[in-house]
Amino acid sequence: MEGSAVKIRNSLGIILTVALLGHGTAQSQSHIDLSGDWVAEWRQANVPNGYARYARFALRQTGSVLSGDLGREKDSLTGSVHDGQIELHYKPTQGAEIVYTGTLKNGEIVARGTAPSDSFIPPSALRAYRDNSSQTTATTHTFEPKAFQRFFASSIPPVLHIAPGDTVRTWTVDAGGSDSHNVRLSAGGNPETGPFYIDGALPGDTLVVHLLSLRLNRDTAISDNVIAANALTPNYIGSLGPAQYSGTTWHLDRDKGLGSLMQPPAGLKNYTVPLRPMLGCIAVAPFGDASYPTGRLGSYGGNMDYNRLTEGTTVYLPVYHPGALLFVGDGHAAQGDGELAGNALETSLDVVFKVDLIRGDAAGGPRAENADFRMAMGIGGSLNDALQEATTNMAQWLQQEYHLDRYETASVLGTAMNYDIAEVVDGDYHVVARLSKQLLAGLSPRP
Amino acid sequence: MEGSAVKIRNSLGIILTVALLGHGTAQSQSHIDLSGDWVAEWRQANVPNGYARYARFALRQTGSVLSGDLGREKDSLTGSVHDGQIELHYKPTQGAEIVYTGTLKNGEIVARGTAPSDSFIPPSALRAYRDNSSQTTATTHTFEPKAFQRFFASSIPPVLHIAPGDTVRTWTVDAGGSDSHNVRLSAGGNPETGPFYIDGALPGDTLVVHLLSLRLNRDTAISDNVIAANALTPNYIGSLGPAQYSGTTWHLDRDKGLGSLMQPPAGLKNYTVPLRPMLGCIAVAPFGDASYPTGRLGSYGGNMDYNRLTEGTTVYLPVYHPGALLFVGDGHAAQGDGELAGNALETSLDVVFKVDLIRGDAAGGPRAENADFRMAMGIGGSLNDALQEATTNMAQWLQQEYHLDRYETASVLGTAMNYDIAEVVDGDYHVVARLSKQLLAGLSPRP
Amino acid sequence: MEGSAVKIRNSLGIILTVALLGHGTAQSQSHIDLSGDWVAEWRQANVPNGYARYARFALRQTGSVLSGDLGREKDSLTGSVHDGQIELHYKPTQGAEIVYTGTLKNGEIVARGTAPSDSFIPPSALRAYRDNSSQTTATTHTFEPKAFQRFFASSIPPVLHIAPGDTVRTWTVDAGGSDSHNVRLSAGGNPETGPFYIDGALPGDTLVVHLLSLRLNRDTAISDNVIAANALTPNYIGSLGPAQYSGTTWHLDRDKGLGSLMQPPAGLKNYTVPLRPMLGCIAVAPFGDASYPTGRLGSYGGNMDYNRLTEGTTVYLPVYHPGALLFVGDGHAAQGDGELAGNALETSLDVVFKVDLIRGDAAGGPRAENADFRMAMGIGGSLNDALQEATTNMAQWLQQEYHLDRYETASVLGTAMNYDIAEVVDGDYHVVARLSKQLLAGLSPRP
Amino acid sequence: MEGSAVKIRNSLGIILTVALLGHGTAQSQSHIDLSGDWVAEWRQANVPNGYARYARFALRQTGSVLSGDLGREKDSLTGSVHDGQIELHYKPTQGAEIVYTGTLKNGEIVARGTAPSDSFIPPSALRAYRDNSSQTTATTHTFEPKAFQRFFASSIPPVLHIAPGDTVRTWTVDAGGSDSHNVRLSAGGNPETGPFYIDGALPGDTLVVHLLSLRLNRDTAISDNVIAANALTPNYIGSLGPAQYSGTTWHLDRDKGLGSLMQPPAGLKNYTVPLRPMLGCIAVAPFGDASYPTGRLGSYGGNMDYNRLTEGTTVYLPVYHPGALLFVGDGHAAQGDGELAGNALETSLDVVFKVDLIRGDAAGGPRAENADFRMAMGIGGSLNDALQEATTNMAQWLQQEYHLDRYETASVLGTAMNYDIAEVVDGDYHVVARLSKQLLAGLSPRP
Repeated sequence: MEGSAVKIRNSLGIILTVALLGHGTAQSQSHIDLSGDWVAEWRQANVPNGYARYARFALRQTGSVLSGDLGREKDSLTGSVHDGQIELHYKPTQGAEIVYTGTLKNGEIVARGTAPSDSFIPPSALRAYRDNSSQTTATTHTFEPKAFQRFFASSIPPVLHIAPGDTVRTWTVDAGGSDSHNVRLSAGGNPETGPFYIDGALPGDTLVVHLLSLRLNRDTAISDNVIAANALTPNYIGSLGPAQYSGTTWHLDRDKGLGSLMQPPAGLKNYTVPLRPMLGCIAVAPFGDASYPTGRLGSYGGNMDYNRLTEGTTVYLPVYHPGALLFVGDGHAAQGDGELAGNALETSLDVVFKVDLIRGDAAGGPRAENADFRMAMGIGGSLNDALQEATTNMAQWLQQEYHLDRYETASVLGTAMNYDIAEVVDGDYHVVARLSKQLLAGLSPRP
Repeated sequence: MEGSAVKIRNSLGIILTVALLGHGTAQSQSHIDLSGDWVAEWRQANVPNGYARYARFALRQTGSVLSGDLGREKDSLTGSVHDGQIELHYKPTQGAEIVYTGTLKNGEIVARGTAPSDSFIPPSALRAYRDNSSQTTATTHTFEPKAFQRFFASSIPPVLHIAPGDTVRTWTVDAGGSDSHNVRLSAGGNPETGPFYIDGALPGDTLVVHLLSLRLNRDTAISDNVIAANALTPNYIGSLGPAQYSGTTWHLDRDKGLGSLMQPPAGLKNYTVPLRPMLGCIAVAPFGDASYPTGRLGSYGGNMDYNRLTEGTTVYLPVYHPGALLFVGDGHAAQGDGELAGNALETSLDVVFKVDLIRGDAAGGPRAENADFRMAMGIGGSLNDALQEATTNMAQWLQQEYHLDRYETASVLGTAMNYDIAEVVDGDYHVVARLSKQLLAGLSPRP
Repeated sequence: MEGSAVKIRNSLGIILTVALLGHGTAQSQSHIDLSGDWVAEWRQANVPNGYARYARFALRQTGSVLSGDLGREKDSLTGSVHDGQIELHYKPTQGAEIVYTGTLKNGEIVARGTAPSDSFIPPSALRAYRDNSSQTTATTHTFEPKAFQRFFASSIPPVLHIAPGDTVRTWTVDAGGSDSHNVRLSAGGNPETGPFYIDGALPGDTLVVHLLSLRLNRDTAISDNVIAANALTPNYIGSLGPAQYSGTTWHLDRDKGLGSLMQPPAGLKNYTVPLRPMLGCIAVAPFGDASYPTGRLGSYGGNMDYNRLTEGTTVYLPVYHPGALLFVGDGHAAQGDGELAGNALETSLDVVFKVDLIRGDAAGGPRAENADFRMAMGIGGSLNDALQEATTNMAQWLQQEYHLDRYETASVLGTAMNYDIAEVVDGDYHVVARLSKQLLAGLSPRP
Repeated sequence: MEGSAVKIRNSLGIILTVALLGHGTAQSQSHIDLSGDWVAEWRQANVPNGYARYARFALRQTGSVLSGDLGREKDSLTGSVHDGQIELHYKPTQGAEIVYTGTLKNGEIVARGTAPSDSFIPPSALRAYRDNSSQTTATTHTFEPKAFQRFFASSIPPVLHIAPGDTVRTWTVDAGGSDSHNVRLSAGGNPETGPFYIDGALPGDTLVVHLLSLRLNRDTAISDNVIAANALTPNYIGSLGPAQYSGTTWHLDRDKGLGSLMQPPAGLKNYTVPLRPMLGCIAVAPFGDASYPTGRLGSYGGNMDYNRLTEGTTVYLPVYHPGALLFVGDGHAAQGDGELAGNALETSLDVVFKVDLIRGDAAGGPRAENADFRMAMGIGGSLNDALQEATTNMAQWLQQEYHLDRYETASVLGTAMNYDIAEVVDGDYHVVARLSKQLLAGLSPRP
């Protein structure tokens, strides 16, 4: 049977069709005022291990009468609160009305929703809490990591709560776990700094991460000496014979911005590469109880290893859990397309990022932009799959941002598309669709 | 940077190079007798979040003198126990000697290992416990599941401990979570029965699961009505227009062994398919802290959806955690190759299986056999990758079992290979390499 | 720009929209009777190197008045013949009327067609000749090949003209060019017997080839000793080191139907394989001026290397040229799925086949059937592409034969699909979608 | 059986192991002087339809004694000429001596070669002719094409003979066959100008084509309005519904170097793209009797559709036939990566190119360079295959040019690789591996 993640991910797009209904009659609790912004956390009532869905809603209470709206479509809510009993009627644009009946407990609404039996909508359990996420002022946090994560997962407790608009100054160890002093603080495999909990982020939102500063903080990087076998033809690999694997150490001249091998073989004794520090990993916690090794990548971002994720770039990631849970790690001093040697110039980094939140408008996958380009990531089990994902992600972005139709989109992509092959050595493949902002400036967005 | 899972998985093949050393001198604890079978659990000492490695070893104590051997290679152990202080010297066939020094605590050896500084072998922390896993008699357990798992993960507490040789009688809900009475007991996405902890199983072993009985226990199955888009050409999909998705319900005539649609469209009013109950999912917990949705598949097995995993088949899975943690679920009454409609004929099943253990000889991936065939699974991000994995898995199996060289293997695979395309709709692709046992009977295994 | 082959192949599906019009006035040629069956060969008039299109049409002449119909849609033709001048009006169901004006030359109509200028239909040049293809009686030809073809191409002169219903008894050399006496008659690379011109075959038809007999005619076969590198994982290939390639010779015991290595290595000294003679190559001439090496495969068939193309099988191939031009060759005494060693058990064969023609109903690709199965071939640059082609080819076959809609098709393919991986070593990949006729017998074809 | 093209292509790398031997005794022809440069054309003697191989050799005649050398390895030739009878002994570095015996006919040596029977080298037929190819002075030809080719094939007679060093001024029609006046001169599908015969080019050489000038010669280009279905995810394509295909016409402002739609939809009314004229097709005749539609691409180049093949670029192509047979066509005024709309901005071009020849050093596939980059093409049935071909082609180039070993190559590719996805809509996929010459300047070529 097809994976639940897919089905559930689809269902995240469905606007929560709940209703809150209170049949209370007593006036002794007329001092309750439910007015304000709320978050609804909703589950199927009789199914033990289902996932929660979330939606934002607003209530206005006038006496015992409730009114409000829910979600981006501003569907109407009506109801009442009497004697501590809350009743809310919710009827979405399409589909049956759902009536929610419950009470206020510890400042949260706890209620049960039911729909007409002929609607086949199962009963649901609702918990709603106050949404205070937009009431903060921007803060700069300095975070000194103590432990590092080798899996992307929602089960990992957050190391810091931050708010949209906040900035974090922190640092990352290299892919093998060593810090700016070459002290090993973690086992290898891209140990991550984080996760950071972004207050107010909900599934269906897009997390925005501005990479304000990515700076080298030591003079060495580690890499490998063999081209990944899957990047060469089978016959060529067969002709080469087994390789002698070993690490290579690079000297990072931070003043000149150049890297060179510390013990270069004869052919490379004058070979230098420009240093362009980048984050190999940037991720949110993946859907549900999934826990992916930090060498993997997917719709949650992860080990994307894209050499344009440098200082000055903004990254967009879909949110799958309240708080999003942001991970960063795997700094590279420089990396060719595809990360062909398996490791780039792996090093520790000083990192400064600022987060923001786009509420209720989930990207179709990771995206990024800098001063020159919009970039839409495509990750898949083959380069063909990754290209399909990237092209679709970009087409949908154009349609969201500029309201282009499919034919207009074809004329733009046919003339302006740039593809990058970001990563080929991490199990999945990563292709990026990239468009020049100078060309996009010629578009005429529809209202 | 390349994923840790890969690197760590490779390192599982490395025989544990530990040594146990006790510098104790007092004789007051001369009553300690360390003779017997042990399991070593070993970690790098100074790296906070590394994974443990495991090895079996045997000790013989004569007075205060210890001798023994470790692992499949029977590497020699020597040492002593004096006054509660344990010292063990271990020198592998290749590499530096490691000396372990420690004590007995609560019946377990707790020690620290060091190697000469010029060996670059980091210090290690050892915990060793008695290995009682081979001392059981075969038992038949009847297990009534209460909860169902939607992720394959080692973090899920086992529901039952069983021993190699034991048999379990249990049942599975269908892919949507409904049982033999069509009562929904779980959210969907292939909820699993288990995990079962197999006593004595260690990373590097192969878990053997004999599917003794897979029986239909209700008269209906659920399926879908649309061919997966990735199984059709892009131009054909583009020409069809959006599909109207809906479920289909099949009647299972258990007496005749035939399935038919309950509300067949005109063209299928007489269409019946033979029922061949199979397990869509059979898995161990994947490596490390990974947690994969039960719709996914990989080296740990999982949602393999192979229509030859029927009653009478034996499945082999590599073990990644102590106890292996076996999951079963996602019964299909019948399924075509590839599971093209996204769902097969999804139903609940009565399941009887028996487990065994092949110690210390990990398969290169999931394998299976029945009376007629050996089957080697290949799972990958594309059908080409899956075929490469399957062919390699089978080639390695032939080399393990018959000691064929690469040229002999080529003559066998070139003349006898059967490939099955098991699964194309679950994110990864699954190809099975299958060889007739009748043909293999002609091979002459080398000693 | 996209390849012409694709576009032109698409355009083959377009019913020829020609019209024949004669403005002749003289009565001296009133003895002309144009009644009967014709074939129209049509080209764009002013474009030098375009390809011809073809259509069958019938005329009835009453006095000087002409009427008739064209193609499968039986579009109406009207016109007249006066004084040697022929005028025909053709108006298709959709689109503009075209008027053809010309004369009879050497029994053929030669005319020029024009359409209203606002139709944007360019002028065309028509040549029409009598269609005598259905007037033959079945004949059995014995054909002794003298030369062998190393390319599939329409430019190769046919070696024999045969008619639908005819049978041909002939033989093929092995892939290296050697015959039943092991005499080398051709350079290697699957030299073919043929091409055979099937009278009356036109582009858009389907050529039917019944493989009546495929018999071994010598006691040896040649194969190779190394598994194709692209069938193994890159890391495994990299670990093996360069291979020592050499041929292997197999003894074919025709009485027992068993093959065994003549100089077996130790592990294979008792290894035997059942002999199942098959044709590795069966092809028509590919579209246009294309000429493909006989190691390649495609929509024209070719080196399909499918081990079910044995005696008793019927093969369907789309026709791209008048006469179809049938090639056969590359006999295998036995072959595993995928032809993993690069060569199967290559041998010469005695071949008897019978041809038939399905007029005007082109298959979407090569197809086959035997007593038990319908088989739809899919050939592509990767196994995923090949699977998409195969599934689509089978879905379209079901829709043609049984008029199933897409949802009915999904229920059939989801429960009954068998996939075979026929070939992985010839540059393109070949997957076959195979359905049991026993299951298909339960379908209810719509009228 | 595997395709002959592959095997034969491999064998092209094998230095021709022929020998020329004359046992003539008469002195009446002592006036013969065989001194000078020759080309050997060699075939297996007894195999009717094998392909010729070629090699250059030099002879020095002193009296009746012959000496000389053959090929890049300068293998020694010895022999004599007596009475019109020529005898030449050739012994390669490895393998048996071959003795060639023959005569001079019409200025060509015609001889038969034999090797010791235990060498298993079959007898061969030799024809050798004087090699005058290096004796020309550079010429500029102006070529007005009259006909256009829709297939790449060696069977097409050359339109012009040119010499290495020569320049050709010519023009190309657009992909649909229209010239600078929008007059249609050919059916569509990338009709080509050529083929040009390069005197002295032999199989195993590399043809060098300097694109000196690529200039727009009209104010319009044609394109398409739909994204190729294979560049989008199957589910997205399925959701879109059938497309309304139509052509789009672009205005080319040659002064400003900008293109814009002539009838833009609302969203694109101000959308302009920079014009970067490029050649979509550049090809030599493919191996053997192969004839590929001009929409295809492969090791012979062809419809590579790479948007960096602009003015100022040098293209390298492997030679498969004497004279190479160069085709050019399919000009694009601009093209995004992948040519996603199926057509780029298709237009006619004025083209000036200069050819050169690298004798005896065949590239592993098409390559190119400009002032900034080396580019190695990879063409395959999937993007993964194409990437493997491109990486291998570049690795081999570095090893040829700089004598880097595999580990040095890994450090360069891992840090400096740029991949371009050139083409995804022409049946095969095209990925280009591109390296900055600035970085390569740091390499230290070994002698």
